[in-house]
Amino acid sequence: MRLSRSFLPTLRETPKEAEIVSHRLMLRAGLIRQQSAGIYSWLPLGQKVLSNIQRIVREEQDRAGAVEILMPTLQSADLWRESGRYDDYGKEMLRIQDRQEREMLYGPTNEEMVTDIFRSYVRSYKELPLNLYHIQWKFRDELRPRFGVMRGREFLMKDAYSFDIDEASARRAYNRMFVAYLRTFDRLGVKAIPMRADSGPIGGDATHEFIVLASTGESAVFLDKAALDTPVPGDDIDFYGDLTPIVAAWTEKYAATEEMHDKAVFEALPEENRVEARGIEVGQVFYFGTKYSEPMGAKVTGPDGVEHAVHMGSYGIGVSRLVAAIIEASHDEAGIIWPESIAPYKVGLINLKVGDAATDLACDQLYERLTKAGIEVLYDDVEGRAGAKFATMDLIGLPWQLIVGPKGLERGEVELKQRATGDRESISVDAAVAKLLGSS
Amino acid sequence: MRLSRSFLPTLRETPKEAEIVSHRLMLRAGLIRQQSAGIYSWLPLGQKVLSNIQRIVREEQDRAGAVEILMPTLQSADLWRESGRYDDYGKEMLRIQDRQEREMLYGPTNEEMVTDIFRSYVRSYKELPLNLYHIQWKFRDELRPRFGVMRGREFLMKDAYSFDIDEASARRAYNRMFVAYLRTFDRLGVKAIPMRADSGPIGGDATHEFIVLASTGESAVFLDKAALDTPVPGDDIDFYGDLTPIVAAWTEKYAATEEMHDKAVFEALPEENRVEARGIEVGQVFYFGTKYSEPMGAKVTGPDGVEHAVHMGSYGIGVSRLVAAIIEASHDEAGIIWPESIAPYKVGLINLKVGDAATDLACDQLYERLTKAGIEVLYDDVEGRAGAKFATMDLIGLPWQLIVGPKGLERGEVELKQRATGDRESISVDAAVAKLLGSS
Repeated sequence: MRLSRSFLPTLRETPKEAEIVSHRLMLRAGLIRQQSAGIYSWLPLGQKVLSNIQRIVREEQDRAGAVEILMPTLQSADLWRESGRYDDYGKEMLRIQDRQEREMLYGPTNEEMVTDIFRSYVRSYKELPLNLYHIQWKFRDELRPRFGVMRGREFLMKDAYSFDIDEASARRAYNRMFVAYLRTFDRLGVKAIPMRADSGPIGGDATHEFIVLASTGESAVFLDKAALDTPVPGDDIDFYGDLTPIVAAWTEKYAATEEMHDKAVFEALPEENRVEARGIEVGQVFYFGTKYSEPMGAKVTGPDGVEHAVHMGSYGIGVSRLVAAIIEASHDEAGIIWPESIAPYKVGLINLKVGDAATDLACDQLYERLTKAGIEVLYDDVEGRAGAKFATMDLIGLPWQLIVGPKGLERGEVELKQRATGDRESISVDAAVAKLLGSS
Repeated sequence: MRLSRSFLPTLRETPKEAEIVSHRLMLRAGLIRQQSAGIYSWLPLGQKVLSNIQRIVREEQDRAGAVEILMPTLQSADLWRESGRYDDYGKEMLRIQDRQEREMLYGPTNEEMVTDIFRSYVRSYKELPLNLYHIQWKFRDELRPRFGVMRGREFLMKDAYSFDIDEASARRAYNRMFVAYLRTFDRLGVKAIPMRADSGPIGGDATHEFIVLASTGESAVFLDKAALDTPVPGDDIDFYGDLTPIVAAWTEKYAATEEMHDKAVFEALPEENRVEARGIEVGQVFYFGTKYSEPMGAKVTGPDGVEHAVHMGSYGIGVSRLVAAIIEASHDEAGIIWPESIAPYKVGLINLKVGDAATDLACDQLYERLTKAGIEVLYDDVEGRAGAKFATMDLIGLPWQLIVGPKGLERGEVELKQRATGDRESISVDAAVAKLLGSS
């Protein structure tokens, strides 16, 4: 993408209303714009990151056997009356009346609707296990929306729902999502640790939160250092095999949010293993048995010929929140440092002297070559001071900067800078291209 | 995808509530499920088609130089008061009060919000031309939602908005979208004809509707046969070159909906050129000048140093409606016939004797081979009668069926059927694979 044809409105000033670093950087780097309290537009760079995150989330859900659907944002109040949550949910639920005065709501989550879909079609245990997920906008009418997309009102969530004939099978479904989450966050370039959690209004007796570690995180967390070194399963993981050992390797190590913290257990760890850190919740997995299937009549005939209410779980990832969480975990004084897997572009190509024929030609050729090789390049082809160009590239945090100016070109060289380390080297054009093509 | 692990709830009975063929087929083939009046869930096959259509729409928007953003579904009423449309819009606008009693609405379109984004950041003509688009759910509270997703209340739309310094430049922006639409619908496998249209509540003096021809279409259309043979520009089209001749080649030929029909002009055509057909509107392009920029203060400094209200256009494609429109244009008695570019899977692999070791092995190997080659396969690995399997495959309309049974395998053969033509041939496994890999 040529900068001259794009729309990247960065801000020089730090917006006063932004209290946390990710919110400040998202505004400054032109990722989002607030439209109303807790409601944001995603500008081009933000939209690209959001879409890259969705791609990875989707790939890992599919790999784990979850099946994608797409439920609407608006739901009927009647469905929520069946589960008893319509009255329980309180003011965070945005209640709406349509022109026929039907009571509707903007879905804050989808347990009821997906249970309704399930009961409409599935009759036999032979069609199980089943896990349906979608990635859709949700709304929670927070009293005090703040911290940008970290605690917005309209937010993008991936939510999956598993249906099984009995608890044992439901626990396997839970484990598949648990492992899928380990892999998802790992691919997103963040360290996310599953921690025992409180089940809250969704209910259920088994639940873990996945917490991204970031020094600026919202809550204190306590963990066994060994959790940090537990390996994440690779691409070759068999989701239909026994995942218990993998899950156990994580859950056996102490890791808890402040809410669930057990001081005695933590202090029984060897001192050098006690890690106190801060974190941000980016996902949660629940097993809640027949809490919804029982009142809503989601039953299947079992091998015994008898009807059973299905055992369910739900599994959420805060997709829009993740953009902020990743920035909290990966930034410096100068700006964002995107993990390569979700960066809006891999390379920022900086033309230091727009209008100089040789520099323009070299840049155009590099842009063409890299783009043709399938590398996403943001090409700064706009007139401007070198200092401002560098500052903008650092701010928006693309993994690589390729800096091209007349002086270097006289020696046949360009400069390649890695954003994360700050390492710079002057190398030949071909060597730069080879390095960019070679890096993961 | 193995059918045993997916969720494809097809219906044998024709749902009584469905009045048009696309609605019937979408329900029967398990693409959608109604959740409330005019509000649908997209089941796995439907979700895949919807996502394939989005991919093509997005590629062609990007190619034409439009820049993707993502605006939220909920908007502030105040924004709509600035343009004067808050009171004008009537009951189709879903009005919402949040917990703080702020007046909000579920966006039926985004002219106001995108103009607000524009005016917040853009100051100079040097940053133009600019075209921002998004693909987002909209809501129009239709009095009588019907015909499934053809006239739903919550619907997915691609809407783009162009900003230019003057009318001449805005007309070029209009032409870029005009040509992008020709290419988009062509790639989606439908014949869509641009027709002079009425500008309606959006306003403006240049507008065309793109109408998909389908014998079951909602409205009568009248066109010069020559319009049907006008070529659609290929991949090599230069969107920054002069597009006037391409646009003229279409707009010079008579093509109009009933509303705009000029009998005298039509009857002046040679009789053999007069085509009366039926069609479905799937997109519309508008040029509306300063209708929004003027009241909302979206101005830039021109080369003359003076502030100018920008000239705008908007460009919509009904993404969810297209799923239905394509089915109207492409089906037969047995079910849907998906164009290959948007089919949920390219191949349906039918195992005629699940449990027979040789057949299972041959199917498993074929599934693996095709999947590894990047072909999307739906593998019917579930026990069932051959007749029912064929009927389901015809109903869901994948372009190719690969039928594997013990008798054929004894001769080393499988059967390959093309859904659109009904042609079947018994060929070797290798020949079948080669043919599937070779077909576009």
